[in-house]
Amino acid sequence: MFIDLNSDLGESYGSWKMGNDEHILPIVSSANIACGFHAGDPLGIFNTVKKAVALNVSIGAHVAYPDLVGFGRRNMDLSAAELTADVLYQIAALDGLAKVAGSKVRYVKPHGALYNTIAHDPKQAAAVIDAIQSYDQSLILVALAGSPLIQQARQAGLSVVAEAFADRAYHADGRLVSRRLEGAVLHDAEVVAKRVVSMLQEGGVPSIEGTFTPILADSICLHGDTAGALQMANAIKSELLQHHINIRAFAQATEVN
Amino acid sequence: MFIDLNSDLGESYGSWKMGNDEHILPIVSSANIACGFHAGDPLGIFNTVKKAVALNVSIGAHVAYPDLVGFGRRNMDLSAAELTADVLYQIAALDGLAKVAGSKVRYVKPHGALYNTIAHDPKQAAAVIDAIQSYDQSLILVALAGSPLIQQARQAGLSVVAEAFADRAYHADGRLVSRRLEGAVLHDAEVVAKRVVSMLQEGGVPSIEGTFTPILADSICLHGDTAGALQMANAIKSELLQHHINIRAFAQATEVN
Amino acid sequence: MFIDLNSDLGESYGSWKMGNDEHILPIVSSANIACGFHAGDPLGIFNTVKKAVALNVSIGAHVAYPDLVGFGRRNMDLSAAELTADVLYQIAALDGLAKVAGSKVRYVKPHGALYNTIAHDPKQAAAVIDAIQSYDQSLILVALAGSPLIQQARQAGLSVVAEAFADRAYHADGRLVSRRLEGAVLHDAEVVAKRVVSMLQEGGVPSIEGTFTPILADSICLHGDTAGALQMANAIKSELLQHHINIRAFAQATEVN
Amino acid sequence: MFIDLNSDLGESYGSWKMGNDEHILPIVSSANIACGFHAGDPLGIFNTVKKAVALNVSIGAHVAYPDLVGFGRRNMDLSAAELTADVLYQIAALDGLAKVAGSKVRYVKPHGALYNTIAHDPKQAAAVIDAIQSYDQSLILVALAGSPLIQQARQAGLSVVAEAFADRAYHADGRLVSRRLEGAVLHDAEVVAKRVVSMLQEGGVPSIEGTFTPILADSICLHGDTAGALQMANAIKSELLQHHINIRAFAQATEVN
Repeated sequence: MFIDLNSDLGESYGSWKMGNDEHILPIVSSANIACGFHAGDPLGIFNTVKKAVALNVSIGAHVAYPDLVGFGRRNMDLSAAELTADVLYQIAALDGLAKVAGSKVRYVKPHGALYNTIAHDPKQAAAVIDAIQSYDQSLILVALAGSPLIQQARQAGLSVVAEAFADRAYHADGRLVSRRLEGAVLHDAEVVAKRVVSMLQEGGVPSIEGTFTPILADSICLHGDTAGALQMANAIKSELLQHHINIRAFAQATEVN
Repeated sequence: MFIDLNSDLGESYGSWKMGNDEHILPIVSSANIACGFHAGDPLGIFNTVKKAVALNVSIGAHVAYPDLVGFGRRNMDLSAAELTADVLYQIAALDGLAKVAGSKVRYVKPHGALYNTIAHDPKQAAAVIDAIQSYDQSLILVALAGSPLIQQARQAGLSVVAEAFADRAYHADGRLVSRRLEGAVLHDAEVVAKRVVSMLQEGGVPSIEGTFTPILADSICLHGDTAGALQMANAIKSELLQHHINIRAFAQATEVN
Repeated sequence: MFIDLNSDLGESYGSWKMGNDEHILPIVSSANIACGFHAGDPLGIFNTVKKAVALNVSIGAHVAYPDLVGFGRRNMDLSAAELTADVLYQIAALDGLAKVAGSKVRYVKPHGALYNTIAHDPKQAAAVIDAIQSYDQSLILVALAGSPLIQQARQAGLSVVAEAFADRAYHADGRLVSRRLEGAVLHDAEVVAKRVVSMLQEGGVPSIEGTFTPILADSICLHGDTAGALQMANAIKSELLQHHINIRAFAQATEVN
Repeated sequence: MFIDLNSDLGESYGSWKMGNDEHILPIVSSANIACGFHAGDPLGIFNTVKKAVALNVSIGAHVAYPDLVGFGRRNMDLSAAELTADVLYQIAALDGLAKVAGSKVRYVKPHGALYNTIAHDPKQAAAVIDAIQSYDQSLILVALAGSPLIQQARQAGLSVVAEAFADRAYHADGRLVSRRLEGAVLHDAEVVAKRVVSMLQEGGVPSIEGTFTPILADSICLHGDTAGALQMANAIKSELLQHHINIRAFAQATEVN
């Protein structure tokens, strides 16, 4: 039994530090690396890429809206052509840095507001899918488990990996509970770790309403930028290993030439 | 007899237009395309790349300091690591867009203040050379004819193309006359065209001091963003053809697979 | 009989030029000057401010979303606190440059997507109103004629000037015809000029559906950045003067100390 | 006996946090607040301004080169006109936010590379002085103790406050020891605190070469963004109070109307 653990990395910017790349990278199997639009300057991105390669962690392009000050968390009404070109540019920049470090971009995970928007907006989703497919047909899209995006991308011919959030509560219908509601974010590492095991062994978790929600996920997102993130990540990994669930990237990390 | 004509292209930014890509591209053999740091948004860059590919024009990365408001024309004191990563990021982003359009980046021409600085500053030059070599050993560097950069880059193992400016006056020692001095920029298209022919057939031009200056150049830079630029470019091309000098890229334009 | 003519100015950015400030400024009575978020670098803004002061043109802050590459034309989902602070910052920066030039900001006209959004979105509108009122109670808001924003701002205690677009078609219910529809933009200078006179003398214009639409406007927006814009502006001014309608700013231009 | 303690504040940017405004503000008498060019987004700046006003801390404009990714620490070759306009824009934006919070900008302290450059470069210094004087003749410039800038600014008619660095070693000739050299930065809070007292009571400190260096300073800069910064700041304040040296802003903090 296997699962992928992914985390957002490379999100520092110049003198501003964010996250804990050094400690999170040894835990995860997939690194969503910022590409410079919501976070990440070239030198910082390059350093994170090199660390990921050294640890044999699979590299994904964490593409975003062009909004540094908003950290890509604010919806932006880009045209399809703008969005496709913005996503292409970001994948390409990261892929080039990965190439120099001896690897390549294996997958694309949109960030923040873009992630949430394309989960249900077929127009922006199509623009992102276009970018990925035109760049490299073998790239995998990481999408919110249960979202309409998964079917849209698969119908377009893209490989998709469904992602779940270990530390977030779900509604009975499979939607994430909004962060504005109480109980939306779980803070007990052991509870969170057991939910991951439940997703894999039971195919779901108890919803916030109490009923069982099916969550079919191939990858679990670990947060790296909050207090306690590292402890949480370690607890999840440990719990998984105890249940004989191995951590493995959905996409191979090392280049085969 | 052959010569390459290059020009700076893709320098619009969002709603702001610059240059005349549509009319300059059919004249030149090499397109120095902005990469987003001094100019160029992803969609605009992508559109210019696609036009260059359609016209079989060789694509070069016009890499620059990160200074949009200064258009990359102001010196910036970047560390070597910052500069290498910035240049890598720009080459990679453009190369990815070129790949999608069916081509690739063939050469690198630094822009503006970076171009002038590395012509004589071995530290920043080394950072740029590192970036180019680590990305793709087959990339060619376009450098100011007569500058110390040429030897430095060749000693590092890089292929270098020397570039001259058709519409600029030269000192007897081969340096460009500063734009702040009278007579630094030539505006008569016929005079400029004849200087290009002289560079190729005589190996140089009369200096501003009156003596003959040797200028060994494999590529001539045409400006595309000033009034009369198009007329000048056409006059030069026409004069060259009359002297049986063909226009040909120093690097092949189309992908051979 | 009086009317104010306003135009968007100071929209160049570094080396990129936009509009025709030098020729539009002598025609208009109010200058909506970019503040650096969608357009305008400090030096360019300052130069436009100084020209406006020299010509006794009233200065308005053309505040926008922080989106240079999108020229402020793309909706952005800012929080109320972010939007209020962004608008305050922009008004303050322009007001300081105006103070040095011997004048001050008299009014605020939101730009592009922000203009359109607050015309009907009470939440973002409230954030903009808050910013204006907290900065200077005497500032006037320029808002789309017929929009709910006008009442919202007046109820909040703000002075509001309603603005109409001389070269845009209107629906029977007073809404602007979308630029995506044929006939949305009028290009005949004489026709446009007569519509301005009709707005003032008849209180409205024929709608695109053929019926008469009331348009109550205190200011007419002239575009400065398109081909023919200058000719159009001159034609409108000339037509107005022929009908004994004077051009006068709704807010005094010169500082009275 | 009095001394001013100043610190760099408001240097977060969007989601990236820097410094410890909440804890440093109660210690210092003067707050050098970022203006958005090297750090600081409008909302973050505004929040820091409001906290400074609440604590009656004097507000200074921490103006910088336009270089977010480089945090204003890299020299940039701006023209005098560009630099003057950039500085004006920053002072004005901060002053407007301060006005809304019930105060105003009292002084200007250039940041990072700009600070170091104008300490000895009379051309860029003149551009900064022009900006300050044209905005408000009563603004005070904070300059490096012992630098030629102090005389240049005073000759231009500007009030100047000389600043020393408590935790930095000085050469015998009064220059700061470069951070690249060992011993340049002092980490022992008690030692640092005693050096401040020595500057005030003895008029200087022992140089790194061992001789006594006169340092005439009206303000001491405390760093707020490093580990141990808070402890250091508190130790200095405590040591000063023990020596009956009061902490007092060189410029009054509250608006008198």
